[in-house]
Amino acid sequence: MTQLWNLAEVAGRDRAEEARQRELDHLLERLYPMCRSLTGEGVRETLRVLQEKLPIEIKEVPSGTSVLDWEVPPEWRVREAWIKDPSGNVIVDFCEHNLHLLGYSAPFSGTVSLTELDDHLYSDPARPSDIPYRTSYYAERWGFCLAHDLRERLTPGDYEVRVDTTLEPGALTYGEFVVPGQTDREVLVSSHVCHPSLANDNLSGIVVAAELAHRLHALGSEHLRHSYRFLWAPGTLGAITWLALNRERVGRITHGLVAANLGDPGGFHYKRSRQGEAAIDRAVVLAARDSEVDVEIEDFVPFGYDERQYCSPGFDLPVGSLTRTPWGRYPEYHTSADDLSLVSSQRLLDSVQLYLRTFAVLEADRQYRNLEPHGEPQLGRRGLYRTLGGEGAKERELAILWVLNQSDGTRSLMDIAERSGLSVAVLDEAARALVKARLLE
Amino acid sequence: MTQLWNLAEVAGRDRAEEARQRELDHLLERLYPMCRSLTGEGVRETLRVLQEKLPIEIKEVPSGTSVLDWEVPPEWRVREAWIKDPSGNVIVDFCEHNLHLLGYSAPFSGTVSLTELDDHLYSDPARPSDIPYRTSYYAERWGFCLAHDLRERLTPGDYEVRVDTTLEPGALTYGEFVVPGQTDREVLVSSHVCHPSLANDNLSGIVVAAELAHRLHALGSEHLRHSYRFLWAPGTLGAITWLALNRERVGRITHGLVAANLGDPGGFHYKRSRQGEAAIDRAVVLAARDSEVDVEIEDFVPFGYDERQYCSPGFDLPVGSLTRTPWGRYPEYHTSADDLSLVSSQRLLDSVQLYLRTFAVLEADRQYRNLEPHGEPQLGRRGLYRTLGGEGAKERELAILWVLNQSDGTRSLMDIAERSGLSVAVLDEAARALVKARLLE
Amino acid sequence: MTQLWNLAEVAGRDRAEEARQRELDHLLERLYPMCRSLTGEGVRETLRVLQEKLPIEIKEVPSGTSVLDWEVPPEWRVREAWIKDPSGNVIVDFCEHNLHLLGYSAPFSGTVSLTELDDHLYSDPARPSDIPYRTSYYAERWGFCLAHDLRERLTPGDYEVRVDTTLEPGALTYGEFVVPGQTDREVLVSSHVCHPSLANDNLSGIVVAAELAHRLHALGSEHLRHSYRFLWAPGTLGAITWLALNRERVGRITHGLVAANLGDPGGFHYKRSRQGEAAIDRAVVLAARDSEVDVEIEDFVPFGYDERQYCSPGFDLPVGSLTRTPWGRYPEYHTSADDLSLVSSQRLLDSVQLYLRTFAVLEADRQYRNLEPHGEPQLGRRGLYRTLGGEGAKERELAILWVLNQSDGTRSLMDIAERSGLSVAVLDEAARALVKARLLE
Repeated sequence: MTQLWNLAEVAGRDRAEEARQRELDHLLERLYPMCRSLTGEGVRETLRVLQEKLPIEIKEVPSGTSVLDWEVPPEWRVREAWIKDPSGNVIVDFCEHNLHLLGYSAPFSGTVSLTELDDHLYSDPARPSDIPYRTSYYAERWGFCLAHDLRERLTPGDYEVRVDTTLEPGALTYGEFVVPGQTDREVLVSSHVCHPSLANDNLSGIVVAAELAHRLHALGSEHLRHSYRFLWAPGTLGAITWLALNRERVGRITHGLVAANLGDPGGFHYKRSRQGEAAIDRAVVLAARDSEVDVEIEDFVPFGYDERQYCSPGFDLPVGSLTRTPWGRYPEYHTSADDLSLVSSQRLLDSVQLYLRTFAVLEADRQYRNLEPHGEPQLGRRGLYRTLGGEGAKERELAILWVLNQSDGTRSLMDIAERSGLSVAVLDEAARALVKARLLE
Repeated sequence: MTQLWNLAEVAGRDRAEEARQRELDHLLERLYPMCRSLTGEGVRETLRVLQEKLPIEIKEVPSGTSVLDWEVPPEWRVREAWIKDPSGNVIVDFCEHNLHLLGYSAPFSGTVSLTELDDHLYSDPARPSDIPYRTSYYAERWGFCLAHDLRERLTPGDYEVRVDTTLEPGALTYGEFVVPGQTDREVLVSSHVCHPSLANDNLSGIVVAAELAHRLHALGSEHLRHSYRFLWAPGTLGAITWLALNRERVGRITHGLVAANLGDPGGFHYKRSRQGEAAIDRAVVLAARDSEVDVEIEDFVPFGYDERQYCSPGFDLPVGSLTRTPWGRYPEYHTSADDLSLVSSQRLLDSVQLYLRTFAVLEADRQYRNLEPHGEPQLGRRGLYRTLGGEGAKERELAILWVLNQSDGTRSLMDIAERSGLSVAVLDEAARALVKARLLE
Repeated sequence: MTQLWNLAEVAGRDRAEEARQRELDHLLERLYPMCRSLTGEGVRETLRVLQEKLPIEIKEVPSGTSVLDWEVPPEWRVREAWIKDPSGNVIVDFCEHNLHLLGYSAPFSGTVSLTELDDHLYSDPARPSDIPYRTSYYAERWGFCLAHDLRERLTPGDYEVRVDTTLEPGALTYGEFVVPGQTDREVLVSSHVCHPSLANDNLSGIVVAAELAHRLHALGSEHLRHSYRFLWAPGTLGAITWLALNRERVGRITHGLVAANLGDPGGFHYKRSRQGEAAIDRAVVLAARDSEVDVEIEDFVPFGYDERQYCSPGFDLPVGSLTRTPWGRYPEYHTSADDLSLVSSQRLLDSVQLYLRTFAVLEADRQYRNLEPHGEPQLGRRGLYRTLGGEGAKERELAILWVLNQSDGTRSLMDIAERSGLSVAVLDEAARALVKARLLE
C-alpha cells in the first residue's frame, strides 16, 4: 500500500519513466494501424501484441452464442475493399486507411453509377478532409467512408466497387488479465478494443490499461488488498458477453473504471457510476484533489462507453469512467484525424498516475475503530504528539486527531478525508501509526 | 393521455381557441358585476351561469351547521345601501359598485354626523381614487368603502345612511363538478368564489377552473387516469365546509391546486404544498420547464388562499397554488382597480394551458420496470434504435435509454425527467414504445 | 422563560448594566495577574475570587488519580524563577510576568553558558517585543519565555539561572456550579482556567461564565426548564478529569458551549459540535439571526479547546464553542500582548447577552401539538385574529398561523423559526397564547 502510494507518486516522473514512455510510443505505433472491429483478426493481433508485455488471456466466444438479450454475430473478415472511378483509378482503398470501409460491410462486387454509389458513401461536410468512422453491425449493408472533399469531386459515370469481406461463423475475441490481491474484492478496468485506426478512442485506453496491469503485476499481490481485473473487449457486445459469461462473478466487482480517451490534450473528466456516490466516485475525486489535478466531475447518463452495460439496472455495478475529453467532444472524434498526433505518451503516463492514485485511495480506505474513544488518549507519552505546548500542530498531528475523533465505526478514511480536507495518504499514515500504538483497530 | 398532451399543446394556440377566447370574454363580462360574498345570491347567480357551460352541482349548507371548528353563518342579503350628503345627494351607492358596501354589513338606517360616519368609512390614502375591498364576516358592523379622494371632500353635517341588508338563516352555497377518470385518485382544483367585483381575484380563477373542467369533460374519462374534482366555494369557510362534509373522501385527493389570480399580466408563481416535495410540487416545475414557461417557485406559508385549509396539519393534502401574481403583490389587489381591464382572456388561456400541462405530467408519471435489466437490450432489432453506428443519438433514443436504465422499480417518469433533463412528454412516448416492445411493464 | 427573554434583552443595555460592567472591570483586574496553570495555587486563587460572587464548589483531584487514558500529574508550584546576566542583573523574572517561566518548568539552579541557556529560551521572532506563552506539561524541562528583542541582545558569558519550582503530589483543582432548573436536562458551560496572564484566552471566558452563572442564579430555577452546569477547569486534563468523575452523569448534558476568547474586538464565531446539527448548533444560529448579530459558523474540527474532549467519539456530546476570534487567529494570541487592553467589559457583556439569547432559544424550543388540526381554528372568536378582513396580517398573527400549521408533533419551535423566518421569541409568545386558548398542547 505504502508501495502503491510511492508507485503513484513516481509514475511518469523519473528516468525509468522515460524508458517506459519510449516503450509506450513504440506500442502505440505498432497497434495504431490494426483494423480492430467488433470481431475479427484486428482484435486478436492487438491482444497478441499486449501478450508480449503481460500474460493476457485471450478468450474466444463462438458466433451464435446467446449473451443476455444479444447473440454473438458472425465474424467479419476483410480481404480487400476499394472503389475505382470511371477512368479505372482506385480512389478509395481499405489498404490505405481502414476507416475507408464501413465497419461490418457486407461483401459486394459490381459496377454502379455515381447515383447508386452515393447511397453507400459516408462523409462529413463539417470536416471535409477527414474520413469519418461509421459501422453497421446489426443491419447488412456495404459502404465506404471518405473525405467530403473527395466525394464532391466525383463525376458521373460507372464505378467499379469491390468489397471482399466475409461474415461467417467465427468468434468474438476479448482479453482478460487479473492481478490477484489479498481479497477477491475486485477493481475492474475495462477498455473497448473494437475501434480501428483511432488513436485516442480507444488505443489510448487499451495502452493505459495494459500499463496499469503491468505495474500492479510488478508491484505484487502482497501489496494489494483488492484484486485488479483488466478487460479488453469490443464495445457494447464485448462487455455484454463478459457479463453474460461471468454473472456469478459480477458481485465481486467492488469498484470499476472504464478507461478511454486518455491521451488527448484535454483535461480529465470523470463520469460517475449510476449509483452516483459509490466509493469509486468519491475515490476519484479525492485522488484528484489530493494530487491537485483538475478533474471535471459529471453525473451518470445512460450513454457513452461500456459503463452503460455495467451500470444497467440489473447489474448496477459501481463503475464510472475516467477519461480526458469525453466521447464526441473533441473535433477529431471518430474521424481519421484521431491519429497518433493527437496522443502523447507523457499524457498517457499522467493518466496512469491518476488511475494509480485512485487505486491507492481505494486501498487505503477502511473503517477503523478508536480503542480509547472517551476523551483524547494521551498521545505525547506514545510519541505521537509534540510535548511542547503552544506551537502550531503539524499536519500529521491533525491527521491523528481526525482519525481518532472520527473512527467510531461508522466512518472510513475517505469520509475523514472529505470532512477534514487532509489527504488520504496522510490519514493513511496516521491510521497506521495509531494501529501500531494500539489506539486503533 | 397522448390526447391530454395534445390538448395542452393546442390550448390557446389555434382558431378554435379564438372562439373559446371570445366565449371567455363574454363570461367575464357577465360574472364581473355580481355581488359574490361568503354567502348569498351572488354566489348562486355565478354558479348558475357556469351551469350553462357545465353540469355543475350546486350545494347548499344551512346556516348554523357545524363545520370543523366553525359554524355556517347567517346568509347575507343586500337590498340597497347608500349614503346621502347633507345636501341630500347620494354620494356612495352599492348599486354603483358592490365594493362600496363593507362585506357582511349589518343593517342600519339613520342620520349621523360626519364624525360618527367616519368610524364606518374605509379608504386607502395610498390609492386615493380606488375603492378598497373590506369585509367584516365575524364581527357585526356596518360600513362603506370609498375612494379616499371622495372621503377627503366630505364636509361636516348630517348624513343619511341606509344599509338595507339582512343577516338571516339561509345557506352557504358552493359548486362542485367531477370529471371521472380510470381511477378514483383525484386531482382537486379549488377556486374561491366569495369575492364581489374583483376581476383577477378571483373571477379569473373561477373562469379558468370552469374552462379546465369543460375541456377535461370533453376529452372524456377514457383518456384520464385520475378523476378531476373542481370546487367553486367561498374562501376559508367554503373549503372548511367541503372538508367537513367530505372527511371520508379527503384521502382520495392525490394532487391539488388552488386556482387564483390567473388573468393579470404578471408571471406565474407556484406556491408549494405544505409537504413541499409532493408529486404536484414537482409536476408544476416539470410542466413549466418542459414548456419553457417561467414559474417562480415559492415555499409553503400558512397564509394565502384555501391551501391554508387543505394543508392544515390534520389534512396535510398535497395541494399547492398556481397563480400569476400572488395575493397582495399587485397594486390593484383588493381594490376597484382589479377590474376587467386587468385581465385578458389570452392570459387566461395561457393559464389553462399550464394547468393542462401539469395534469399531463401527473397522468404520465408512473413507475415502470425494465424487463431486460441485465445489460442493454438490443434495441436495433426491435426498431427502437438507429442501425448505423457513429451518428449522434436522437432525443427519442436518449429517452429510451434513460427509461430503460432508470426503471428499476424505484423511479418514476418524473424522477427520470428531473435527472435526465428530458421532457416528460418525450419520456412518456419512449415508455409507451418500450411497453409495446415488451421491454417494460 | 419570558423572564429569560427579558434578561437577554436587557444584558449590557441599561444603567444597572453599567454597574455590572464596572464590576467586571474590577474582576478582570484582580484575576489577570494570577499564575494559573494545569494545577496549583493560581487556579485555586482564581476560583476563590469567583466564590465571592457565586457559591462555586472547588474540587480537588489528587495527583496520580487515573482519569480516562490520563493520570493527574504532580502539582506545580513556583517560588521564584529568574535569569541573571553575566553582570549579575536580573534580565528575566517570573515576578515581573508569569509568562516568563515555561509552564510546568522543572526546578533548576546553576550557572550556564549562553549557548547552554539558549536551548532553554523561547521567543517569537515574528513578534519580537512580546513574551510568548509556552508549556511543557508532559516532558520534564525547564525554560524561560522572553521577548525576542531581549534574547537577541544577550552576550556570551555565564548566566545564573534559578527555577525554584516543585512538582510534587498535590491535586488538580476545578470549580463547578449548577443552577438547577425544572428538569435535570443540563446545559453545560465550560471554560478553561489553566492560562496564566492571558486576558482574552481565557480570562474572558472565565468571567463571562461567572457572569452567566450569576444572572441565571438570580433569575431563579422556576424560570428555567434546563439546569445549567458551569465548569471552570484546566484545559484538556480538567475536562478529561470531570468526564472521568462524571461518566454516569454525562448523559444529562443536552446542550453545551465552551466559552473562550469573549472579550476581543473580533466578531463572533461558533464552532459546531461534532454532531453538527444538534439543537445547540441551531440555537446559536437562531439567537444570532433573531438579534441581528453576525456569527461566523464553522464546522467541527478535532482541535481547539475542550470541545475536543466533550466531542470525543465515546462521549459525542452536543457541545459547540461560541467565541469571538477563535484561538490562533488574532496576533496577540498566546503572547503577553493578550493583556487587559485587548478585552473590554462592554464586549464581555455583549457576549453574555448572546449566550443568554441562546439559552432563551433552548428554553423556548418545544414540540407542541395542534389540538384543532383539521382546517384552521376560528381565531377571531378567541380574540387571536383581527376581525376586519382585507388588512395585512400582523407578525403575531403570522406566528400563530405558523405554530398551528406546523405543530403536528414532529416539529419544534426551532424548526418553525427556521422555516418561517420568524423569531423564536415571537413564536414562543404565539405558542403560549395558543396554549392558553386550548388550541395547542
